[in-house]
Amino acid sequence: MKRTDERNQNELRAIHMETGYVKHPEGSVLISVGDTKVICNASIEDRVPPFMRGQGKGWVTAEYSMLPRATQQRNIRESSKGKVSGRTMEIQRLIGRALRAVVDLEKFGERTLWIDCDVVQADGGTRTASITGAYVAMVLAFGTLIQSKSIKELPVKDYLAATSVGVLPNQEEILDLCYEEDSEALVDMNVVMTGNGEFVELQGTGEEATFSYNQLQKMLELAQKGMNDIFDQQKAVLGEWTAHIDRNRNQNQS
Amino acid sequence: MKRTDERNQNELRAIHMETGYVKHPEGSVLISVGDTKVICNASIEDRVPPFMRGQGKGWVTAEYSMLPRATQQRNIRESSKGKVSGRTMEIQRLIGRALRAVVDLEKFGERTLWIDCDVVQADGGTRTASITGAYVAMVLAFGTLIQSKSIKELPVKDYLAATSVGVLPNQEEILDLCYEEDSEALVDMNVVMTGNGEFVELQGTGEEATFSYNQLQKMLELAQKGMNDIFDQQKAVLGEWTAHIDRNRNQNQS
Amino acid sequence: MKRTDERNQNELRAIHMETGYVKHPEGSVLISVGDTKVICNASIEDRVPPFMRGQGKGWVTAEYSMLPRATQQRNIRESSKGKVSGRTMEIQRLIGRALRAVVDLEKFGERTLWIDCDVVQADGGTRTASITGAYVAMVLAFGTLIQSKSIKELPVKDYLAATSVGVLPNQEEILDLCYEEDSEALVDMNVVMTGNGEFVELQGTGEEATFSYNQLQKMLELAQKGMNDIFDQQKAVLGEWTAHIDRNRNQNQS
Amino acid sequence: MKRTDERNQNELRAIHMETGYVKHPEGSVLISVGDTKVICNASIEDRVPPFMRGQGKGWVTAEYSMLPRATQQRNIRESSKGKVSGRTMEIQRLIGRALRAVVDLEKFGERTLWIDCDVVQADGGTRTASITGAYVAMVLAFGTLIQSKSIKELPVKDYLAATSVGVLPNQEEILDLCYEEDSEALVDMNVVMTGNGEFVELQGTGEEATFSYNQLQKMLELAQKGMNDIFDQQKAVLGEWTAHIDRNRNQNQS
Amino acid sequence: MKRTDERNQNELRAIHMETGYVKHPEGSVLISVGDTKVICNASIEDRVPPFMRGQGKGWVTAEYSMLPRATQQRNIRESSKGKVSGRTMEIQRLIGRALRAVVDLEKFGERTLWIDCDVVQADGGTRTASITGAYVAMVLAFGTLIQSKSIKELPVKDYLAATSVGVLPNQEEILDLCYEEDSEALVDMNVVMTGNGEFVELQGTGEEATFSYNQLQKMLELAQKGMNDIFDQQKAVLGEWTAHIDRNRNQNQS
Amino acid sequence: MKRTDERNQNELRAIHMETGYVKHPEGSVLISVGDTKVICNASIEDRVPPFMRGQGKGWVTAEYSMLPRATQQRNIRESSKGKVSGRTMEIQRLIGRALRAVVDLEKFGERTLWIDCDVVQADGGTRTASITGAYVAMVLAFGTLIQSKSIKELPVKDYLAATSVGVLPNQEEILDLCYEEDSEALVDMNVVMTGNGEFVELQGTGEEATFSYNQLQKMLELAQKGMNDIFDQQKAVLGEWTAHIDRNRNQNQS
Repeated sequence: MKRTDERNQNELRAIHMETGYVKHPEGSVLISVGDTKVICNASIEDRVPPFMRGQGKGWVTAEYSMLPRATQQRNIRESSKGKVSGRTMEIQRLIGRALRAVVDLEKFGERTLWIDCDVVQADGGTRTASITGAYVAMVLAFGTLIQSKSIKELPVKDYLAATSVGVLPNQEEILDLCYEEDSEALVDMNVVMTGNGEFVELQGTGEEATFSYNQLQKMLELAQKGMNDIFDQQKAVLGEWTAHIDRNRNQNQS
Repeated sequence: MKRTDERNQNELRAIHMETGYVKHPEGSVLISVGDTKVICNASIEDRVPPFMRGQGKGWVTAEYSMLPRATQQRNIRESSKGKVSGRTMEIQRLIGRALRAVVDLEKFGERTLWIDCDVVQADGGTRTASITGAYVAMVLAFGTLIQSKSIKELPVKDYLAATSVGVLPNQEEILDLCYEEDSEALVDMNVVMTGNGEFVELQGTGEEATFSYNQLQKMLELAQKGMNDIFDQQKAVLGEWTAHIDRNRNQNQS
Repeated sequence: MKRTDERNQNELRAIHMETGYVKHPEGSVLISVGDTKVICNASIEDRVPPFMRGQGKGWVTAEYSMLPRATQQRNIRESSKGKVSGRTMEIQRLIGRALRAVVDLEKFGERTLWIDCDVVQADGGTRTASITGAYVAMVLAFGTLIQSKSIKELPVKDYLAATSVGVLPNQEEILDLCYEEDSEALVDMNVVMTGNGEFVELQGTGEEATFSYNQLQKMLELAQKGMNDIFDQQKAVLGEWTAHIDRNRNQNQS
Repeated sequence: MKRTDERNQNELRAIHMETGYVKHPEGSVLISVGDTKVICNASIEDRVPPFMRGQGKGWVTAEYSMLPRATQQRNIRESSKGKVSGRTMEIQRLIGRALRAVVDLEKFGERTLWIDCDVVQADGGTRTASITGAYVAMVLAFGTLIQSKSIKELPVKDYLAATSVGVLPNQEEILDLCYEEDSEALVDMNVVMTGNGEFVELQGTGEEATFSYNQLQKMLELAQKGMNDIFDQQKAVLGEWTAHIDRNRNQNQS
Repeated sequence: MKRTDERNQNELRAIHMETGYVKHPEGSVLISVGDTKVICNASIEDRVPPFMRGQGKGWVTAEYSMLPRATQQRNIRESSKGKVSGRTMEIQRLIGRALRAVVDLEKFGERTLWIDCDVVQADGGTRTASITGAYVAMVLAFGTLIQSKSIKELPVKDYLAATSVGVLPNQEEILDLCYEEDSEALVDMNVVMTGNGEFVELQGTGEEATFSYNQLQKMLELAQKGMNDIFDQQKAVLGEWTAHIDRNRNQNQS
Repeated sequence: MKRTDERNQNELRAIHMETGYVKHPEGSVLISVGDTKVICNASIEDRVPPFMRGQGKGWVTAEYSMLPRATQQRNIRESSKGKVSGRTMEIQRLIGRALRAVVDLEKFGERTLWIDCDVVQADGGTRTASITGAYVAMVLAFGTLIQSKSIKELPVKDYLAATSVGVLPNQEEILDLCYEEDSEALVDMNVVMTGNGEFVELQGTGEEATFSYNQLQKMLELAQKGMNDIFDQQKAVLGEWTAHIDRNRNQNQS
């Protein structure tokens, strides 16, 4: 059975990553996953938040926002409302936590790496696209620290990417939900994984519905399949930095 | 190998639920899970939020808070800070979503059921204790609607409870983490399940760490074991209402 | 003439104080006055607010809040509204000021004693119950400083308690108003007194009404009567610390 | 013994009230009490707040603010801080409540009378000067409703004024504290009274001190003496409206 | 004398406008002016703000924001700060007011046209680029109302564009300041003009400096020259809609 | 043709400035321009904001507010709304920037001069009256630094004043718009000038209208005429300080 956009059950949408999209940030990527487009900028600040000071370690944190008209209906800006929504907070905490799982905080000094994910156009999967793109922007930003000889090794232990899986009302499991699928799905699960197939985050939610152990297993298989495709694309845009990451992966395993 | 508090790997902490703890709410439960204590109050309001009006359906929503000195260090009140933290928002969205998964929103009219979970004493697992206690408070509150003949059937499709599982630094999987275990665990996973063993929410997070598919399976087994114990205790305090829930469960399956 | 709950005009509601109610705070009391229940926690922080620094003195401050469903109708949380109401501010300023009147700020170093009064169930007199309970929690917290040899003497000069008096529409003066009486009273007066019968605070308010000098005198007599009962109960739960307070009282008088 | 500004113990500072100070409000008074100057404006709005609608009654409410440099040190504006302080809230609640005690809310329709008290120069007693001046502005504003034939009778039952009394460190009781006296006083008591000598509000506070029943009596005598002087001055500026108020007073007593 | 980027005194930076940049909005333009890039989205909402209701007229309003890393140093998000800065408010009020000057509010019913200007990359002149791009997005959005036959005529009376002029420390007047020039200029003037050479806004500011009448005249000549170039480019991307605008211009003049 | 208040096209409203209006500030002026009345207070603080520290320079900043009933309809206080409006921010930024244009920030040490403009009564031109009055308050405040020998020279380079000009619907240009004229004018332009006729700020706005180069010239002539009258009045109230300012003007020109 074909999906609304003719994809197979286990097929990702087209992914494109344009690096250097904005000139000021240390790392900048415009990622598109189907019609979802997110600008991921990585900035390096030479200090850490108060709760981290004096430990000689760095910190990675993320912020997420949508342009008001990234969606079909215009949303009120969170700056006008004067507060950040629960959904935004959940997403930006997720992005930061996911990135930190593959970063060696001990290895880049008392610096903060800020990730800003700004959704320009939304068509489902904005949080997973943000993680996938933010990972690339982060590596590029750490790369500038190596180029300026501020650090010696890339403090990134492995690849990292994210995608979604879900269950449609016809009980079929699918990979990489677009907005239309997401709004009718019974179950929605975001999966964040590392290059060697370990889980970083697993967030499965029944929307006024539930899911069985069997369905969980099928969804995880689809997720694993999708991840491999995404890692290939990240490697293509990361160029020389893949060698650094691969070296770190080997050291961690031995 | 024994845990800090002498429990087995697959052993829950002692659970106690005192119903009718506060006199005003339609449903009120003081739940304790080990040293974690949460007041769960359920209130019924005779209208729904604006985005739900005119559909003839009800709504279930939750709020969560901690007393400033529920924890070892005193926390600043969110009312003083003027905003609710990301952590609080994540938790209250989780509680509301979990409860809605077993409620038939069509069956209690244009009413809102508010759940307030106020943590009096925290020792790990406050969000899962909140869900377990909130479920009981919710059933009791719906019960008052039946007693007042406002509705005919209990709009609750199944039992619902939550617990946590995790992986310790020694790679051992454990059930129901207390605060001390939670702060050193490599992986922390919250599981919300229904009485018939389906998942409602699955939120697994590596804390600057990752977990394998194999570890996931072991954690889910522990969670399933713990759930069965919790459901027994919920049934004990729900008294006459268990018959209503069991009837609904049978109807859904047939 | 009997009151709604059968009490005499000069009769307090039943008071109960459970110490050690929450395990983390240095002092913790669950006080109930009739159906009004307040958790009073005292926390010690090893610094003072900026405006007090460098004077070698301590500070005592209080915060007050109600659980949303402490009352008959659910109230919106102040953290959700993003601001603390005028009523809350008035009450927490009153509690702090009242406690400071019997504390010797010079005698516990540059420390802040935080009092948190969280109303679990409200049935009138939540602010006076808070003061009465907070006093006990405060003494217990200072006691831990003596036990840890951080200070030598209890920095508490006298006992302190609070109650309300009022005038009913039938012009009768009464002691310790419950919610129902409070909402119909013409005059409501909160009285805070020390163990030796001095006033600390006197706040009398006509609710779209006024009161004469003669009524004032009668209300103050009732208050004095009630206070003596409350002090007896505070002494009972304070145990060994009463000897310290009595010694301080004698020294102040000589 | 003479006071810093040479006044007797029972002597008020010079009071001046300039009516019509600002041209737009329905009632406007610039009151000065010694060096304390407050602009009191009364505005009439043709609707009541939501909680009052449909009852056919009016409402009286007050707001209070200080110019940043009304005081010796410049204060940050509350609009810049984004919130109103506890002190401001306490004062504006007090002013509104005091005025309502002499107003017949049933007699001016579903209207709100807003009182704005803006302190231009502060030298102690800003809240009592505000009440004294606000009362005059209020009567003038109600007067315009009579002149426009919107209402028939002045809905004001009696005169109303406020002053402060206190106890100096030398244990002397004094009337009408200026800033310097206020900052060193052991006890500070604000008294709001009606023309016939009844209390509306009584707020006595020991500042890290206490006061006896005997001191209370002496302070209340001073307050009564001061009130009589203030009522004379209010009558002088109210002109024709005093006849309306006196008529209402007679009707209430008979 | 040449400028930092080799331009002549009276030369604009390269301008590019990509229409249809985001798919959801009724009008969407990515404008770049040199290295300044702004996404301008126009959204149509079928109602007007409360103060406009019932007049049968429409409203045009704008919001402006910068991505945190649009600039050389990362800025804190206004949503995190919980309030919109004075600079942002000034700019969004300017954009809305400027657009309304060429719109016939009577001619598109009770609708609101929202303009969102989000700066992706900033290099000086973000507010003038926003106006120039927003004008195009607005015309495209009104075009969809004509295409859907919701209105008959384009409610736009003339062309509209904006640019900056200034005075360098060497007293030379220049057109279209980039960031580097803007930060050292003595005078900065933003000019908004219509297609027939009338002023809509003129905002000249000495930065701890002043300017003479003679300098004002020279700056206005430069501005007029730049405008003509910009109008040509707007016409090129507006395609068929230029005929509508030209017709409206002729009617207004006759 | 005469204007509503019988003035000529090029005639200012009556101006009055009362110095020393409030006793606490270092400089205090009550300025009235026709029926517009503003209290302008200047305060000196012995430090600068964080972004200025360590440069040995001072800072001048302004805040602006209106009493709620300065206008015909009562406005909600910005402190109650919890945020400052865009209009207020625009005005206070303008006042601060204008004053800084004639101040030598290098010459009064690391101090902040705060200007508070509080509008007591509004009848058009509140921002220009604020600038004119604030200038005088500022000079007086700097004067106290000379009197206390904290600085040697007055750090003020020239006179400074502001007024408005505009275009009426009958296409007539006028000077100094009152509220009624302002609300019907097609064009409104605020002009800030120095004593030697240089522009500091020029803010011309078409209100859903535009203006030609010719109209701009006529408005600027009117503004220049008005300025000369205002400078004469400033000199009259500045007394001895005019000699200081004149000396600084001569030095700057030579």
